[in-house]
Formats: sequence, structure tokens, C-alpha cells
Amino acid sequence: MDKQKLLDDLTGIVGKSNVSIDEAVLFLYSSDVAFESDIFPDIVVRPSTTEEVSQIVRYANDNKIPITPRGAGSGASGSAVAVKGGILLDLTRMNKILELDTDNFMVAVQPGVVLVNLNEYLKPHGLFLPVDLGSASMANIGGTIANNGGGLRAVKYGVMRNYVMGLEVVLPSGEILETGGKTRKNVVGYDIVSLFTGSEGTLGIITKAILKIIAIPKHVGVVFAVYDDLYKAGKTVPAIFKSGILPSAIEILDQTAILAINKYRPDVNLPQSAEAILLFEIDGPIPIEREITIIEETCREQGAIEVKKTTDEAERTRLWEARKLVGAASTRVREGYSRVYEGEDITVTPMDIPDVLLELRALSKRYDLPIVVFGHIGDGNLHPAITVRKKNPQDLLKLKQLVDEIHELALSKGGVVTGEHGIGVQRAKYLKNNPLNLHVMRLIKKVLDPNNIMNPGKMDLDPIYEA
Amino acid sequence: MDKQKLLDDLTGIVGKSNVSIDEAVLFLYSSDVAFESDIFPDIVVRPSTTEEVSQIVRYANDNKIPITPRGAGSGASGSAVAVKGGILLDLTRMNKILELDTDNFMVAVQPGVVLVNLNEYLKPHGLFLPVDLGSASMANIGGTIANNGGGLRAVKYGVMRNYVMGLEVVLPSGEILETGGKTRKNVVGYDIVSLFTGSEGTLGIITKAILKIIAIPKHVGVVFAVYDDLYKAGKTVPAIFKSGILPSAIEILDQTAILAINKYRPDVNLPQSAEAILLFEIDGPIPIEREITIIEETCREQGAIEVKKTTDEAERTRLWEARKLVGAASTRVREGYSRVYEGEDITVTPMDIPDVLLELRALSKRYDLPIVVFGHIGDGNLHPAITVRKKNPQDLLKLKQLVDEIHELALSKGGVVTGEHGIGVQRAKYLKNNPLNLHVMRLIKKVLDPNNIMNPGKMDLDPIYEA
Repeated sequence: MDKQKLLDDLTGIVGKSNVSIDEAVLFLYSSDVAFESDIFPDIVVRPSTTEEVSQIVRYANDNKIPITPRGAGSGASGSAVAVKGGILLDLTRMNKILELDTDNFMVAVQPGVVLVNLNEYLKPHGLFLPVDLGSASMANIGGTIANNGGGLRAVKYGVMRNYVMGLEVVLPSGEILETGGKTRKNVVGYDIVSLFTGSEGTLGIITKAILKIIAIPKHVGVVFAVYDDLYKAGKTVPAIFKSGILPSAIEILDQTAILAINKYRPDVNLPQSAEAILLFEIDGPIPIEREITIIEETCREQGAIEVKKTTDEAERTRLWEARKLVGAASTRVREGYSRVYEGEDITVTPMDIPDVLLELRALSKRYDLPIVVFGHIGDGNLHPAITVRKKNPQDLLKLKQLVDEIHELALSKGGVVTGEHGIGVQRAKYLKNNPLNLHVMRLIKKVLDPNNIMNPGKMDLDPIYEA
Repeated sequence: MDKQKLLDDLTGIVGKSNVSIDEAVLFLYSSDVAFESDIFPDIVVRPSTTEEVSQIVRYANDNKIPITPRGAGSGASGSAVAVKGGILLDLTRMNKILELDTDNFMVAVQPGVVLVNLNEYLKPHGLFLPVDLGSASMANIGGTIANNGGGLRAVKYGVMRNYVMGLEVVLPSGEILETGGKTRKNVVGYDIVSLFTGSEGTLGIITKAILKIIAIPKHVGVVFAVYDDLYKAGKTVPAIFKSGILPSAIEILDQTAILAINKYRPDVNLPQSAEAILLFEIDGPIPIEREITIIEETCREQGAIEVKKTTDEAERTRLWEARKLVGAASTRVREGYSRVYEGEDITVTPMDIPDVLLELRALSKRYDLPIVVFGHIGDGNLHPAITVRKKNPQDLLKLKQLVDEIHELALSKGGVVTGEHGIGVQRAKYLKNNPLNLHVMRLIKKVLDPNNIMNPGKMDLDPIYEA
């Protein structure tokens, strides 16, 4: 690729200050939070309008140059890394909130709006977007849609797809598609909005989204329940659902997480002998004391040995603290071992969680690699944080096998290898487990992107172009 | 088409008693609740297994014979009518509930299960599927998925898509695709489940679905609010949403509906001078008196001239009665005029509802055709029931223009021509309003169904095969 020509041509579209072929700049785009590569894009381009995006995509399509869209790079599957080189499209300048309609509870945004910034903007109106990612302070709306983000509060509020009503997408041809709209019900043809949501930038570039928003709940409570038996903790989840109460979060910390947190921050002082801690958050428009009492009673009925509850804000923050610390704590569980983000997003049914937790513990022992396990038990979504000595070749070899075993474990339960982090590069090989589904994906990819310019090298889609 | 050969070949797959070329039988499949045609399928086939469906589809594909899937025929867009002849695939024999998992809150079903039968089955377990169609006593799960049904309670519970976790689909090739699964979070590749949901049988035959189910709410209440000003009724909806309370239904009856109901059933005795009545249903796992009070107060604050509320079951039924009667009442509003199901599913934003209602009233006057308007104001989804003299050619001519004007009205507000009934034959021409979106649909259709055997003649998809 003639880099100078690329630079000149793209400068013509976005201006000199918004293109770069500087190696030091390109390096910044060679990884995300989980995926590191030594592959740099050929050029980084930072458009500010849909029209510019369209021109860049047309140019890429005419010249068959790969184009990889990227927001904050806070993903964890490599989907925003330009593994085939070409153009890295940095969308962070497209960060405008375009329209707020408080009567119809919707907001139109550009893709580069950061999740927390959107919620800060909505707060004075008493409104919010309830998709609450761990990475909300970085993650962009565009990337959250492209990866169909879930997060902490999906058990009640659902995932990103549930809030995307309409999209503007620049197709691989450069044409600008508007799909969906601002109505809450819409069955006008195929659900093209859902097709782009979660497609990880392989079908087009999201340049605008119309999102549903809702009222901020006025009342929030937390229940913290300690168990000496993992299965009793597991059984508590369907018992709560059966009551009809839908907590806004149901999180689990298993023994490994409890140990890690106590080691990292002894002052948090979690019950060391516990097998599991469940953390429930409940919210609503009117006081939620009755819901809290029902959850507390259900936890006790199911065998919790200790239950705390509160609606007080400071106390709530304290009870959430352990959960918030667990990511950082995982890297302290054994001296010299640090966290890797592989095999870390498996999802099964809620009732399979206790078995999976025990099997993860056994795997950790067998491989002699600490795994700290936490996650969204209400969704069956677990984040096993594997820790290794990153410079130790033997650890890295073991890691590869361990990751495979973790994914196989989820699949053996009828689960999936990723609940909210996505496929990207990291999990591409597992799509082969369902070859017909992969074939359908590839057919759609090829017909919409005949030159395979749009985020190539992801989701195991490329082989159809070689056929 | 050699009908005798067709009969012989398909008899070989499903047996003699499950095929028919009898004209009297074929006639039964020439219409749905809204769409009447004089086109009969060549043959009706009633498979009982996925394997049989697969064999039939392979046969159809090999011989390039159109194949139209159909459940109860309770749709309202013609999507289950074989407008290109060929094989009518009646799926009502595939009516088994395959698996109930009460711990993970899911149920696996065949497509021919009737909605009310599923909920009857789930009731003893305290569970239900909350998609509540007006046609629930007829509608099959398969058709409800294929049309992404919405219904009365979508404002709180969402539409069918929100409950479909996994699908088994026979593709146009005859291959059996399993997509999605039983986990609540799943970002393994493109959202193929959503692509088939709402595709109206044009991409494949749904032969199995894994559905999310939830606990039946223990407490239900109703608020009935009368307004002498349509705009005040309209403004009440966002005011309720702002409180954070999410009613399970928000229905509106406008002046035309009130008049029709009073004429049909004088004993119901609705306030004749009212401009609008709003009906709220609230449900939840714990007593909902506070929510009811907030809704009542909000209605009064927004200018309701009369508000009734209740949690008593008999009284609730009485307050719902007017809404339940409105369909039947519409055919009695003027002697000799009966309801047609055209232009009857427009959807706009909730705040555009008052304007749309007034414009519908003006249209009714201008065309001198009674229109009774009711619908799901919480979703912005209105059902204007146009009435005409069905044998009067002039009325039918006027009807055509009126329907166009109603659809144009919705589009002029940024709305859509169908919120929950679908495109089928009836609304196919409106897809041209978004030619690029239609083009994307057509590309997907053609790549998955190269011979256009799967429910051809729907959704304006055919032209791509002629190109």
C-alpha cells in the first residue's frame, strides 16, 4: 500500500490534522483492553461527519482497502484492531448528542458519545440509558451497539439492543442507510437494526443511533447474602425470579474472588470461609422496602448464613465495594501473576452456575493458575479472571489449553463462549461449532460487503471470500 | 404444475391424511383475518416433524415450487396466504411443548402451539409468556415469531422478539439451522434470531423456539381516566413514564370509539361527551396501590375530568370491557358499514398521538367513512378501524385513497405503517419509502433463498430475482 498516497487522499477528505501515519500514533491502535497485537493500521483517520465517513468508505471500497471502525478501544475481543492493516477509522470525534426528546423518551447520538457522558447529560432530565458496562467511563455508544453490550444491570434492563430504535449506517458501498426509526413498535420488514447491532463493525459503520431512554429510578436498595454452599446460592436466583421480583443486578463472588479481595483489601473483610456471596440491587419508582424484605427472606430460606440489606447510599456503596474491587484484586491473588482477558465471558443458564464454578475451581487447581471468578449470575454470565505470569512461556502455553477448556465447559452445558464481550479475533474459532449458522453469517457478510473491506479478519468470516 | 405428481410426492413425505388438493380445503387457506384473495395454493401439506419440513422444503427447492408457511392464519397482512400458489405448509400439527425449565425460566415449543394454550400450560407453574395479542386464542407461536407480534402489554413487556432466545429454522435449502440458544446473554456472531423474527416466513420455516418466560404478577390494578381534551390525554402518557412507573398497558379510546361502544352496548354507558378515555393496567409482584395512586394523581394533574381505579378483579374486567368491545362495536357505528383491516396499524411516537387522532377524525369526515380509533398509546400504536359498505364499489375506491392517506399521515410524522401486524402483501408498497433498506432486505433474501421459493410475493422482495 502506498502510504503517502493514502495520506494525501484521506487528507483530502478529513483535513491534515485528522489523519496520521505516525508509527507512535498507529501503535496506540494496535490493541484493545484484552487483545494485543503487533499489527498496526496503515493510517488512522478521524472523521467528524457521516458524509466524511461515507467518502472514506467509498474510497476504501474503490481501492479494496480494509477499514476498521473503532471507538474507545475498550472492547475485549480485538474487534476494533485493524488486523488486516488498512484504514483505522477513529470515530471519537463524532461525539455529539444530536437530539433529546424528553416527551417520547429518546435521544439521538453520534457513535463517539461516551456512555457516562450520555448519562451525565441525561441526568438533569431525570433520564438515563440503563446499559451499565464496567467500561462505561470509556466505552462509546457506537462500539456498545456494535458489540451489543450488556453489563451489570442486564438482568432487569436488558442489553444494548433493547434500547436501539434506529440506526444510520454507512454501508460498505459508502451508501448511507437509515433503518429502524423513532417508534417503539416497528415491524416494517426485516430487523436490520438487530443485524447491525452486535455485528462488530463487519457490515458497516454506525454513524448515528436513536436510543430509547427511561426515567432514573428514585429508590435503590442492596441485599448482600453470604452462603456456605454454592448450590444454595445458585438456587436462590430462580427462587427470587419466581417471586416476580426482578433485581436490577444479581452478582456473584465465589470463594476465589472472596480470597482475592481479602488479600487485596483486608479492610473489606469478607467472610473468609464463605463459598459464595450474592449481591442484589433492587430499584424502582416507589420505595422498595418490601422487595428488599422478600429478597432477604428468600436468601435465608435458601440457606444464606448471613444477610445484610440497605437503602442508604453510603452503605450501598460499601456493599458494592467488594464487587467493584474484584477486577483489580484478581491481579494480586498470587505474586507476579496478572490478569488476562481470555476465556473470561462464558455464559450458561443461571442454574448451571454452581457446577461451572466448581469446575472452574478444579481447572484452576489442575493448571496451577489462579482464576478469580465473578459475574452476572442472573444472566448466567461469568467472568473467570485467569492470572498468569505474562512473560513465562510455560504459563502462556498452559493458558491456551485452559482457555479452551473453559470455553468447552460452557459449550458442554449448552452455553456460549461469550455473553457480552463479543467474538472479534479472540473467539473466532468457536463459531465453527455451529457451521451452518456461521455459513449464514458469511453469506450475509459477503452479499453486503463483496470486497471484504469492512473490518476483515473478524468472526471467521473471511473464508467465504477465498471460496 | 402437475398437481397429481405433487400430491404423490408429498404424500410420500407426510402420508395421505396430511396432504390435500381438494378445492374446498384449499379455499380455507386463501385468506387471513384481513386479506382475502381468490388465489389458492396448489396443495396443502401438514407436516408433524422438523425432518418432514426439511424434506418438503428440499423438494420445493429442487423443483422451484413456492412454499408458504402458515399457522392459524390469524395474521392481518396476507403473509400466510400463498399468493404465488405452490405448497401451503400448515404447521398446526407441530403443536407440542417440548421442554419446560422452571429453574431457568424457559420453554421450548413447536411452532403450532397456540398462545393461550402455552399460557394455560404454564399457569400451574406460576409462569407466563407476556406477549398478549388480541388474537391469542388463535395465534400460533410460529406465526407470532415470524411476525414479531406485539399486542396489549408491549409497553411494559416488550414484543415477541424479547422472548425468543433460540430458534430452529429450516432454511430454503432444506438444511436445519439452530441459532441462538438457551442463554440470556449471547453475542456469538450476528443476531440471526432477530433476522428470522419478523421475517414473515420469507427466509425459512421456524420449527422450534426456545422462549423466555416470567412469573405471573400477583397483583393487578386498573385506572380508567376520562378527558375532555385529547391533548391532555396525550400529555398524560409521558408524565406517567416520567414517574418511572411502567404500566403493563396504556390504551386509548377516542371519541369515535366511545360513540361506537355506546351505540353497540348502551349499558356500558361511557361518558358521551368525552374526547378520550385512557385505560391503564398496572401489575407487579407486590401490592400496587401506590402505583395506582400515582397514576390516578398524574391523570388528574394532567386534566382528567373523571378517574376510576380498582384492583378488584370483577371491577377490572368491567373497566376493560369498553376496550374489549371496541372491535365488534366498530362494525355497528353506521348501519351497513363493516370493518376492514387496512391502514389499521400505524405507529408514531406517543406524543404525536393526539394530532394523529384529530387528523384521522378529519379524514373520516372528508371521506364520509366511519373510522373507530383505538390502540396502544404507550407504544404510539393506533388501530384505526375503517368501516365501509363492502359491496359498494365507490366505498372501495374511497377506501383505497383513505388507506393511503392514513399511511402517509403516519409517515409524515416520522412514524411507520405497521407497528405489529406486518408487511405481507397489504403494506408491501410502502417499503419503497426506504429504497436502500429494501435493497439490503432483498440482498439478504436472495442470498439465503436463491430460488425464491420461501413465501414469495411478500414484502416487495421479488424484484431482485427479476434483475
